[in-house]
Amino acid sequence: MTAAESLESNCERAARAASSARPRLALLTPAERTDALRRIAASIRARSDAIVAASEASERESAAELSLAMLDRLRLTPQRVESMAVGVEQIAAQPDPIGRVVEGRTLPNGIRLEKRRVPIGVVLVIYEARPNVTSDAAALCLKSGNAVVLKGGKEAARINREVVAAIHEALAPLGLADAVRFVDTPDRRAVELLVKMRGVIDLAIPRGGPGLINAVCAAATIPVVKHDAGNCHVYIDEHLDALEDAAEKIVVNAKAQRPGVCNAAETLLVHQAVAPRVLPRIGAALAKAGVELRACPRAKPILASSNPRPATKDATEEDWKTEYLDLILAVRVVDSLEDACDHIRRFGSQHTEAIITSSLSAADRFTSLVDSASVMVNCSTRFADGGEYGLGAEIGISTDKLHARGPMGAEDLTTFQWVLHGSGQVRG
Amino acid sequence: MTAAESLESNCERAARAASSARPRLALLTPAERTDALRRIAASIRARSDAIVAASEASERESAAELSLAMLDRLRLTPQRVESMAVGVEQIAAQPDPIGRVVEGRTLPNGIRLEKRRVPIGVVLVIYEARPNVTSDAAALCLKSGNAVVLKGGKEAARINREVVAAIHEALAPLGLADAVRFVDTPDRRAVELLVKMRGVIDLAIPRGGPGLINAVCAAATIPVVKHDAGNCHVYIDEHLDALEDAAEKIVVNAKAQRPGVCNAAETLLVHQAVAPRVLPRIGAALAKAGVELRACPRAKPILASSNPRPATKDATEEDWKTEYLDLILAVRVVDSLEDACDHIRRFGSQHTEAIITSSLSAADRFTSLVDSASVMVNCSTRFADGGEYGLGAEIGISTDKLHARGPMGAEDLTTFQWVLHGSGQVRG
Repeated sequence: MTAAESLESNCERAARAASSARPRLALLTPAERTDALRRIAASIRARSDAIVAASEASERESAAELSLAMLDRLRLTPQRVESMAVGVEQIAAQPDPIGRVVEGRTLPNGIRLEKRRVPIGVVLVIYEARPNVTSDAAALCLKSGNAVVLKGGKEAARINREVVAAIHEALAPLGLADAVRFVDTPDRRAVELLVKMRGVIDLAIPRGGPGLINAVCAAATIPVVKHDAGNCHVYIDEHLDALEDAAEKIVVNAKAQRPGVCNAAETLLVHQAVAPRVLPRIGAALAKAGVELRACPRAKPILASSNPRPATKDATEEDWKTEYLDLILAVRVVDSLEDACDHIRRFGSQHTEAIITSSLSAADRFTSLVDSASVMVNCSTRFADGGEYGLGAEIGISTDKLHARGPMGAEDLTTFQWVLHGSGQVRG
Repeated sequence: MTAAESLESNCERAARAASSARPRLALLTPAERTDALRRIAASIRARSDAIVAASEASERESAAELSLAMLDRLRLTPQRVESMAVGVEQIAAQPDPIGRVVEGRTLPNGIRLEKRRVPIGVVLVIYEARPNVTSDAAALCLKSGNAVVLKGGKEAARINREVVAAIHEALAPLGLADAVRFVDTPDRRAVELLVKMRGVIDLAIPRGGPGLINAVCAAATIPVVKHDAGNCHVYIDEHLDALEDAAEKIVVNAKAQRPGVCNAAETLLVHQAVAPRVLPRIGAALAKAGVELRACPRAKPILASSNPRPATKDATEEDWKTEYLDLILAVRVVDSLEDACDHIRRFGSQHTEAIITSSLSAADRFTSLVDSASVMVNCSTRFADGGEYGLGAEIGISTDKLHARGPMGAEDLTTFQWVLHGSGQVRG
């Protein structure tokens, strides 16, 4: 067998094994699913030492090649392993999404019709070096009655192996070991093979940088729900009244509270009527937060009067498109709310946008015209998050429009089944 | 400009024009959407003579090449044009799906959160020679606030042109002509170009035979919800009690009432415990309905005692996979409900399956184990239909699991937006 054949059979074996667990999964009760998750949490705790040791070994091996941020993600202390276990228990405690009747009625011919939530089937989760995704994704998929194929990043392979061993220790006595399968290969082509398994895998959820997302979209013949990047905007409207302080606070929070995440703001749009009044103080606040600006020709002279004055460069069209994920913010003065919405439609990524306004009509127009997963009225873009929305743990934040949009919880890992109960009816 | 460039620019122009209508569509009220649809219905009625004339001309041109069934589809009498107009009015009268709040709550920090239904954006509908799809698809997309790009079959091009002219006559005075765009080319490559327009078109809905569906799936880089074929099963369980008559009636109805449609049954599975009792009478009933059988080695000798005796051939594995769309039914005797479900999982298309049983537990196990969009308990597979389910007009029957499953109405042409109303909140 060549290496390519062996990779292919490795992927195929994992996917088919996961699929073979489906009849068993289909007959579990909610209590049995909850019990399986609690056992996984216990098993992760029991293996804590081995998981921490694997993390330390990974760190030693990779110290030379990896960034500090990446090394930090790989570092699992006993406390972090405990959080993984608690995360699984929290998912266990969430309401069970399966069997929920979304609609139902009796048809004129006496047939009782129900539209019920059912598992999707086999879910493929592709992620990079975050070992907690291994336990979270397995738990969310089991919670929603799905089998899961996990494809993690190679840097975390040693840790993932230990976490998966803990999961299997918990699931094997329940006859469910195949429900969680891990594709253990550093070969990136595995992803391309897996996303072509129509008829075996029902959904791919890639979480990661543009390289991974584009590779998945180009290769996939199975449905994909992407956890992609966010080029988020804050727009300050002409109707501001008593919201000047709030505007400043929200812009600084949206940009600087955690600049490396997808719901951080990347561009500030300011209505020309209020720009001379609010931009200088926002510029000063951003300067204090260490934020550099990329300003349009109308914003630049206004920002020059900020005290302290933020480091400012001229914005190019490239800046409007850029997700900095850093302490950099593009700033543009616009003529109207409609122009702000045009800018967002043209350059945005439909993730999250905020408007600061005292006008109800402006808030409504902005919400209608901006086609984004989340729209914030007078609050920070940073709230776009499954935990903040009360959804519990999330498998990702969908930047797609189909099936799931925005933070994606266990319920988004279900589909529907129409069930009709009759007593011999035939169609006339 | 070469022909290929002109085709590409033709497709691109249509898609971009549809997209340009989105801000206007986003600000329409439900009453304005309803009004637009009523005007379309009136305009179709006003152009009835021209539409009928186009249909007669198409028939004359194509009489030599097309099947009788195809010619029948193309034949639009004044009555059929009137039904198209009535269809649009019925869609106008359905509840408006846009803005519906699916969930909502106040978060601990005082932010009010709502998850609202919003339009998907630009929907591409690809179909073959059914001119009524032109008006139905346009109406369903407008009802749900979407712009639509229509790509119809070349046989109906002349008719579609007239129907689209009627739609445009109605929409132009409302500034909405671009919301419905028709790609008027007989070139099949147009489909491949359109399904790659990521960022302009949000969703493709192909309706048609396997050739069309496979071409779309292979080429698409935008999300696709397929209206694919159905290999539907009826399973007769060992627990039958007083349902023998019903079993016979349902099998005949599921197969023979309208054999050419996707929800007709293609395979009958019978539990071995009841096969000797029910198969002879079902065989006779099918023989009377003119149905030919393809039987497994266990079913064949039992069917030989049917009176009248149905024409019967030996079933091959190919028969289990075949969607006959004709008066032909495959028949297999199985050892258990679980074996029936295995057969369906292996050969089925996850469209619609039926069980005939008097046992509640068997009905529940079958429903859980069969991963199909619709499951019928003691009624005919033929009920899998948006009209029968009370959804109103349907844009298709989704054979996918993501986003929409089974009959797809106007609500399935929406996505969600999370809207958060705050008063200056930032994340801590």
